[in-house]
This record gives sequence, structure tokens and C-alpha cells, in this order.
Amino acid sequence: MKSSRYDVVGIGNAIVDVIARAEDDFLVRHGMHKGGMALIDEPRAQAIYAAMGPATEISGGSGANTIVGAASLGARAAFIGKVKDDELGRAFAHDIRAAGVAFDTKPAADGPSTARCYIMVTPDGERTMNTFLGAAQNLTPADIADDLIASSAITYLEGYLWDPPQAKEAFRKAAKIAHGAARLVALTLSDAFCVGRYRAEFVELIRGGTVDIVFANESELRSLYETADFDTGVSALRQDARLAVVTRSEKGCVVVSKDAVAAVPAAPIERLVDATGAGDLFAAGFLVGHSRGKDHRTSALLGALVAAEAIQHLGARPQTPLNALAEENGFKL
Amino acid sequence: MKSSRYDVVGIGNAIVDVIARAEDDFLVRHGMHKGGMALIDEPRAQAIYAAMGPATEISGGSGANTIVGAASLGARAAFIGKVKDDELGRAFAHDIRAAGVAFDTKPAADGPSTARCYIMVTPDGERTMNTFLGAAQNLTPADIADDLIASSAITYLEGYLWDPPQAKEAFRKAAKIAHGAARLVALTLSDAFCVGRYRAEFVELIRGGTVDIVFANESELRSLYETADFDTGVSALRQDARLAVVTRSEKGCVVVSKDAVAAVPAAPIERLVDATGAGDLFAAGFLVGHSRGKDHRTSALLGALVAAEAIQHLGARPQTPLNALAEENGFKL
Repeated sequence: MKSSRYDVVGIGNAIVDVIARAEDDFLVRHGMHKGGMALIDEPRAQAIYAAMGPATEISGGSGANTIVGAASLGARAAFIGKVKDDELGRAFAHDIRAAGVAFDTKPAADGPSTARCYIMVTPDGERTMNTFLGAAQNLTPADIADDLIASSAITYLEGYLWDPPQAKEAFRKAAKIAHGAARLVALTLSDAFCVGRYRAEFVELIRGGTVDIVFANESELRSLYETADFDTGVSALRQDARLAVVTRSEKGCVVVSKDAVAAVPAAPIERLVDATGAGDLFAAGFLVGHSRGKDHRTSALLGALVAAEAIQHLGARPQTPLNALAEENGFKL
Repeated sequence: MKSSRYDVVGIGNAIVDVIARAEDDFLVRHGMHKGGMALIDEPRAQAIYAAMGPATEISGGSGANTIVGAASLGARAAFIGKVKDDELGRAFAHDIRAAGVAFDTKPAADGPSTARCYIMVTPDGERTMNTFLGAAQNLTPADIADDLIASSAITYLEGYLWDPPQAKEAFRKAAKIAHGAARLVALTLSDAFCVGRYRAEFVELIRGGTVDIVFANESELRSLYETADFDTGVSALRQDARLAVVTRSEKGCVVVSKDAVAAVPAAPIERLVDATGAGDLFAAGFLVGHSRGKDHRTSALLGALVAAEAIQHLGARPQTPLNALAEENGFKL
């Protein structure tokens, strides 16, 4: 195997988060499912924005957050995703590059504006997301740079890519190139509602070996196997996946492999400020640990550590250098 | 005197803050004066943005921050300032309106983009600002709504308005209307370098009675009277101003009136995260206290309380309802 140019390349929706605090009754009044991600069209986006409180704009996107986290941990990282050449698109590109991530996807010159995710953070720190996909809908297989995928140790894909019409083809193309170059493919299931929309395809991706490593949280796992019972879900996942991690918020996570199901604790936090990005950053830590040859438990502990950083401030991107944080906590990467 | 429609109307540069963390050597390398505000042109703005780290966009502007703080304290508040009709301009308008502030200044249809302030926050929590004035340069006397000024108990003006070419005329027009309606005019000196640029005019505004209440910090006071000695500055200010407050960071503030010079302590904080907006929010608290007939000491304590909230998170706009904060701390507004 040739040595890799990147430790990890992510493919995902390129999104700017528009974050505001909101009370629970705001969610009810606007028909939002707490903790979930809803796709919205432009008129709904305008209506939500008009109703929501003063906001902060921070680059986001699930896969992009993971890749930025990986870069902050010291990984060589790249990202593929579609913005428009507008103010928010330029902000997205600036932020991800300033985080040390290679990002060369050509921005759309026309069509819908850069994707935005309107995030309501309730007093309990939970986040409820409303995504206007905009320019992210125009990611196509042509945006997948063969050379980049073939030279990355891990290609990381978000389940949300099933929403834009042509992105799943980009996803399949990337997975094929990666495996053709004897590289690994990882997938996050993204969101329980997303799993509900594409259940059969996701099961097929995992069972058929299109993906090697799967990330899910409890509700995504339950949705995937249509079961209320966690252990039933874990058993099914163990049958289907080569390696999977199921995150359980403050209860830590479970690493599911053919030879074992191992529980790993969460990292302690002082105060939950905004849960946005917890899963994204967990994946960053796990993937970097895995790519450095750490055992599953160590990788999961690193994931838990950087997820804990993410949920103690507003926004999903790290606000402190994660390599230093990891070192302070005894990780040797 | 007719009852007022607003407790306070602010006039200032309408700016979106682009905030990133930076090390001290970044400031040195890019020739920035730590703790100060520098005016920059578009090429310099692009160069700074390209060099700076991942950023967060939050609506800002000194006067606008003060007005949003006043609204959060329960005051009836309005703002006058110029944005362009672009993405950041729409974000500014959304955020200030969502904070409960009346904002009806017509956005510019063309010309330079909405103003941006590139803010570097160093590890000590200090902020260093670089402002591209953009559309804010096009504020003119025509933007001053006579009726709005005449019906506001206090008109609050930022010294930064001396930078855009026609805004000082808007400022003078507003002060004249306010006094013609027997209302109060307040001014913040904004920044020591700004005072350096317009010293003679600022002294004339204060001495000549164009402004009734003056806000300054220590370095602005020293710059105003070209003295290294704090007490000399305070004596000169007492001579010139009807009422003034000089803020001194963790040392609290000094309320300077004809009959007394009274020191008031700062409010305790857990951790200084980002000093951006400390002075702006102090002014909000003081003005709201003053407009509710509180004594100077109580008004200054309220200013100190809300300034302490502002410096414990990133960005200058309050992240918690200030009226509730004031109530919890025993203020009856």
C-alpha cells in the first residue's frame, strides 16, 4: 500500500450554521422536532429566520465539522462539499481552510445560495436543526477528485448526502475509488429522520461492505433496525458491520466489532452549552485515533474527549487546539 | 415635556463582527495595536481575513451593541445605522430587530458592502479590532429621522461616527433635534486612537454642551486631555462635562459630576473570555438606569453588571436576557 497523502477526506454538505437560543415553546409553535434535523425550502427558511432570535453565524456541516476536528487533532485532512460563490460560501471556505483543511471543491457560480442550517439551542443545551440545502444540492460525482480519495487513508461520508439528488452518486463513486486503492470508508448515519428516509439503502451500504466503519447514535441505531431495544440494535449492527461505534451522549459509547462489544465512558463536562457537533467531533477523535493505529477503546476515549470540548460552547467547530487538549489528557498521537 | 416613545435611540456604524482567536505574535506580525481599533481599506481587509483563523460572525458595532443591551434590559430602544442590502447587511438587520430594537434605516442598494470588523481575541481575552467601514460610510443627515430623535428620552452617539465623512453632520443634526425637544444627548469616546484623530472636536462637543453625558475609558480620557495622569484627566472632564463616566476595566468606574467624583466597583467575573463590548454594555446599563431615574451609583453598578456578562463569552451582544440578570442581582428597573 502506498503511503497516504491525507489521513482523512470528508465528503458532506457544506453548510453555515445560523445559531440562536430559543425556548421550548418556540419549537412547538414552529412545528420543530426537538433534537432532530428537518430539511426546509427557501420560504420556510425565511419564515424561521424572521421568527428566530439574534443569531451567530459559524461554519458547520456535519462532515465538515468532523474534518476540522481531525485537522485540529493534527491529522492531514481534506474536504469535498459545494458552496455558492457568495458571502456565506466565502466564509465557509475561509473557515475550513484556516483550520488547516485542504478544500478545493469549485463553488457554484449561480443557482441557490450557500446552504444554511438554522439551529435553535434550547436552555437544556439540545439543538434542533432546520437545513436549507441550497448550493449543497449541486454536489455531483464530477466534484469527487479521484486522486484525493485514492490518496486518503480514510474517506468519511455523511448520511445526509442521501438528501441532495446527485450526492449519493458522488458518495458511491468515492467509496469505489477508496476501496480500489485499498483505503477505508467510514459513514455516519447523521440523524434518525435521515435514517428513516433511506433505511434500506443504509443497511445495504453497511451489509454489502460499501462502508467499513459506521458511526451512529442510539436513536439512529433504533431507526436503522426499527427496534425500541438498544441491545437488539447492537446485535443487528454487529452482524452487519465490520466496525461500528454507537454514541450514547452522557452514557458514553459502545464499540461494536466482530470480536467484542465494548462500552467506553463519556468525558466529564462542566456545563452542556450547545450539543451541536457532539457526534461530529466524536467521529473526528475516533477516526484520528484509528488512523494512528490506536486500539478501539483509546480511539473512543479520544472521541469522547473532543466531543466534550464541542458541547461546552456555541457552535460545532473546536474553539481550542484539539491536539494540545489531547496531549494534556495523556493521548500520544 | 411630552412622554417619550423610546427610552434611547442610538446612532452608530452598523457593523458585523468577524471574530477569531489569535496569538499575540499574530498581532505583531500584522502590525496591529493590541486593544485598539484600526480603520482598514478593502485590500487590507482581504489580507487580514486571509491570514486569520476560523471565524464567527456576530452582529456588532459599538453603538448598536449598547442599544441591544438597553433593549435586553427592557428599554424601548431604536437604532440608526447604514448597512448594504447584502447577506451581512440582512443579518445585521435581522439580529438587531430580533433583539427588540426598532431599526428602519434604509439599506444602501449599491456601493461598498456592509461594514465588517475583524476582531482578534488573544489568550488574555483582550480584543484588537480592524474595521472596514464599507456601507457605514454612507450614513448622512438624511438618515436621521427627526421624529424618532425628538421622541427619544436619550440620543446616544458613538465617537466612531467622526470617521465616516458625513456621519458627523448626522450626529450634529441629531443632537440639535434632541435638545430642541428637551431630550438628553450622550456620547461615547469609542477609542483612544479615535480621540486622537478628533480631539479638538470632541472637547468642543463636551465643553459646548452638545452632549450631556460622556462615556470614556481610561485611555480615551488620557488621550482626550493629553495627560498621563488619571486624576488630571478626571479634573479636566469634571470642568467640561455635565455628567461623565470613566470605565477602568476590573477597577470599576468613576462617575464624574459637578458635585462629586464617585468610584464604583466592577462586577465579579469567573473568566474573561472576550473583552469585546465591555464599554458598550456598560453604557447600556448606565443609560437604562439613568433613564429610569436611578442614582448615578446604581446606574453604574447596573452598567458593571451587564458589562461583566458581555466579557464572559465571545461577541459583544448579550447571550442572556439582561432584564432577568438585573432582577436576579437585585435591580428594580
